[in-house]
Amino acid sequence: MSIALPREVSERALQAFRDVVGSDHVLTDPDQMREFRDPFWYGGWDEYEASAVVQPESVEEIQAIVRLANEHRVPLWTTSQGRNNGYGGSSPRVRGSVVVNLRRMNRVLTIDEELAYAEVEPGVSWYDLYAAIQAGGHRLMLSCADLGWGSVIGNTLDHGCTYLPYGVDMSAACGLEVVLATGEVLRTGMGAMPGNRAWHTYKRGLGPTLDQLFMQSNYGIVTKMGVWLMPYPETYMPIWVRAWKDDDLAPLVDTLRRLSLDDTIRMVPQICNTLIYASFMTRRTQWWDGDGPIPDEVIDRIARELEVGRWMMRAALYGDEAVVDHRFAKVKAAFEQIPGVEVWGTKTTPENAKNLEHPAERIQAGVPDLEMNFMTGWYGGEESGGHVGFSPVAPLTGGDALTMRDLMRGLIEGRANLDYLGALLMVNARTFIHITMVLFDTANEQQVRGAYDTSKLLVREAAKHGYGEYRAHLDFMDIAADQYSFGDHAYRRFTETIKDAVDPNGILAPGKQSIWPAAMRAWRDG
Amino acid sequence: MSIALPREVSERALQAFRDVVGSDHVLTDPDQMREFRDPFWYGGWDEYEASAVVQPESVEEIQAIVRLANEHRVPLWTTSQGRNNGYGGSSPRVRGSVVVNLRRMNRVLTIDEELAYAEVEPGVSWYDLYAAIQAGGHRLMLSCADLGWGSVIGNTLDHGCTYLPYGVDMSAACGLEVVLATGEVLRTGMGAMPGNRAWHTYKRGLGPTLDQLFMQSNYGIVTKMGVWLMPYPETYMPIWVRAWKDDDLAPLVDTLRRLSLDDTIRMVPQICNTLIYASFMTRRTQWWDGDGPIPDEVIDRIARELEVGRWMMRAALYGDEAVVDHRFAKVKAAFEQIPGVEVWGTKTTPENAKNLEHPAERIQAGVPDLEMNFMTGWYGGEESGGHVGFSPVAPLTGGDALTMRDLMRGLIEGRANLDYLGALLMVNARTFIHITMVLFDTANEQQVRGAYDTSKLLVREAAKHGYGEYRAHLDFMDIAADQYSFGDHAYRRFTETIKDAVDPNGILAPGKQSIWPAAMRAWRDG
Repeated sequence: MSIALPREVSERALQAFRDVVGSDHVLTDPDQMREFRDPFWYGGWDEYEASAVVQPESVEEIQAIVRLANEHRVPLWTTSQGRNNGYGGSSPRVRGSVVVNLRRMNRVLTIDEELAYAEVEPGVSWYDLYAAIQAGGHRLMLSCADLGWGSVIGNTLDHGCTYLPYGVDMSAACGLEVVLATGEVLRTGMGAMPGNRAWHTYKRGLGPTLDQLFMQSNYGIVTKMGVWLMPYPETYMPIWVRAWKDDDLAPLVDTLRRLSLDDTIRMVPQICNTLIYASFMTRRTQWWDGDGPIPDEVIDRIARELEVGRWMMRAALYGDEAVVDHRFAKVKAAFEQIPGVEVWGTKTTPENAKNLEHPAERIQAGVPDLEMNFMTGWYGGEESGGHVGFSPVAPLTGGDALTMRDLMRGLIEGRANLDYLGALLMVNARTFIHITMVLFDTANEQQVRGAYDTSKLLVREAAKHGYGEYRAHLDFMDIAADQYSFGDHAYRRFTETIKDAVDPNGILAPGKQSIWPAAMRAWRDG
Repeated sequence: MSIALPREVSERALQAFRDVVGSDHVLTDPDQMREFRDPFWYGGWDEYEASAVVQPESVEEIQAIVRLANEHRVPLWTTSQGRNNGYGGSSPRVRGSVVVNLRRMNRVLTIDEELAYAEVEPGVSWYDLYAAIQAGGHRLMLSCADLGWGSVIGNTLDHGCTYLPYGVDMSAACGLEVVLATGEVLRTGMGAMPGNRAWHTYKRGLGPTLDQLFMQSNYGIVTKMGVWLMPYPETYMPIWVRAWKDDDLAPLVDTLRRLSLDDTIRMVPQICNTLIYASFMTRRTQWWDGDGPIPDEVIDRIARELEVGRWMMRAALYGDEAVVDHRFAKVKAAFEQIPGVEVWGTKTTPENAKNLEHPAERIQAGVPDLEMNFMTGWYGGEESGGHVGFSPVAPLTGGDALTMRDLMRGLIEGRANLDYLGALLMVNARTFIHITMVLFDTANEQQVRGAYDTSKLLVREAAKHGYGEYRAHLDFMDIAADQYSFGDHAYRRFTETIKDAVDPNGILAPGKQSIWPAAMRAWRDG
């Protein structure tokens, strides 16, 4: 649903922003703004176009921008690096919003070796933080995302997944600084006490803890965050589990649950299907030029030729060598009870991880990378490949995994006429997120339209089975949120009651996760 | 500071409550209400007296009570079991409030063996949940508090500590149902989707996650909660670490941090001083009848005679026997590098834990108990012993531990003329909470007054050193919250802005954690 501002942002407002950040940091030229557009949206569409991009470099400048936005009634849309690919990139929900992009605030403010945490600004990418840790000679590992260019804060605020032990339940973040819609600066948890020593070590404060309230929401602009880092274990061991039959997914998942509940595996494994691996390593045209989705017999051939099976799990063990040895033997014995399943791994050290050949083996050791971005070109190649993420959450059982697979594959192949690329991320011992990479050629309007339309259908179908989205693309945020309707939408009413109270002019990211300010709610509901 | 209702709760309002829950469940008789009074408050004081106790038995009754409270402008104060001892028991912050006590809502609604969680109502105590797990034959361990009579939900909502691996960062809770001040019922996280299968497995939802917002706050009445349970490990091994010198505390803490950051110890250990152990096992009069606090030479004698050292840590290992063996050897080697420190432990099984002699060894295996409540009688005996908890948070470093010890001991001995009983709870690998048990004789008005006055002083002194309270007694909630003043009290303004929006009549627990509704803020500020 297209929602646009009633009128363009005024030249007076833009000039006021220029007075704060300098003319060079207010972008209005379409060429300059292109990289802050959803990169996977069809070129001719303009539903999510911003009217300008403002790039402040300090908390004070953000405070000034927020005050001006209230004065001029300009909706802002905050991005950090703006790499929210598959979910809308740096584009705003409301056409004509001003993007506040925080790339210039890219300082790593602290690395505390003793207590093993860092404090970062929003412009700090995974690459930046990794480099700072290395430059300081710290023996600390960073739980990072699959693509290293993203912002540590931006990814965290959107509930993004990372893979090391602190990736479990997204638990690396501790303690935020936030600019509110009033222009005030608030610190969460212990940070609310000036000079408190436990801001980035203790996850709560006195009174309600607000960290989670500022994630996937539009109640403030986060300007600082604590990030827990893991001291180097003696041994790091990436492991692989490969299954050759499509229905092996169920026993894989049930075995993984048992091994996670008993703490044998404690990190965030990914179980990916054949085509996910194929998309990392090859182009689709190499395998199939027929009509419609790649058929099973071809998938089996790819599975064999690339040696990735129908499902393959990447995971890792961390710890003292004796413990890793014990655990690997246990993992191997458990998975190899499933006929045909193979398990292997190679022990190494955190110091050596950056030299490993497979990007997944580096990423699971916190060494950021961009190699996996190759998959974007599955349809359309490097020039025009794109994807949208459709990512529901389910309990970690084999039954749920098969239900989810059948639902996703059925609709993506049957309705969108596209390939089913599925990755199950185990975010804790009881839960997986089914990341569905709906890949398409952004130059093919019909294909793009089909991908988004099918995603919208999937949101509703998944909800009927009891599965909800963990994150949603701009284009179906409202539909995804509609499914969370318990108590006649009590959750939405509560979050919008808060929105109206803390941001009465509705200037901060209206529509983010379908939280709309009062003045705009008619657009969604009408 | 005494804050009372402008007038008593009207007979009309009480009759309306009786119409909802039945006359038997509205208590106004002082004898019946006695157990809902702060048990450790001086008998003659009435600052925190309730006017009635209402005991609903269903969500619908709570909704009706909340609606009536709005109509009659009656402030409610919710308690579950009401065992908030040391922090005010079941007493309300505002004198004359009606206590909504949820003991009658005591059903264990679900125990899911496969996904290892339970769903409980607020009246379910640790004892109740443990009994239900045992009765169902589930091989699941419950991370419980030191005293088994408390409510699982009540303890969780007040950030209470438990000791098994899920006690780390208080991470056992997942997914709440809440009655709002409007009378609406809201479910958090995935529970906001009707029929969602991951409500009690995934810690977030789509949009901001509200679980933490309903803890230590007054935004709603929690009526259901998911609780993660831990599948039985092969081996359970309680361990003890004893140090004989008072300054050994620093290397104990530094060693513990390293062993926790590297995942060798993953649960919530307690490091307690001599007098904490003495208070569990003996009466003060047995050791000392002189003036003022017990002197060091007597403490040394107690340490020797009870064999508890000057500081002793209780902890436990859980897992496969081979891993436990490796870890115990590592723990022993690490702590025994500190001269004179001794480490011991005995391997057993979860099945056998209920037969262990020491209550701490049972509690660390999730077997609830009340034995430790004996300590309350250190001054005053069983009849009139009492305590107030003063509990600041600090980073887990030896330097912080010594600073905290000196600060606490100095003021408790020097100002309150009482003994220093200190317990450091390691709530995660980077943080401890210093639980200061300020024990006194509730029959001795001067001693009680001294204990509360000193606690207020401690709040301010601790804040000067960068340490804030994790929880506060009714009598110094406002002072404790005052210390969280960053940004000219931006945190408080934000939480009170939310309060005014979601509970405009201010009927839910006014003053809880110093969150006051608009109409009452003048009392605190003036």
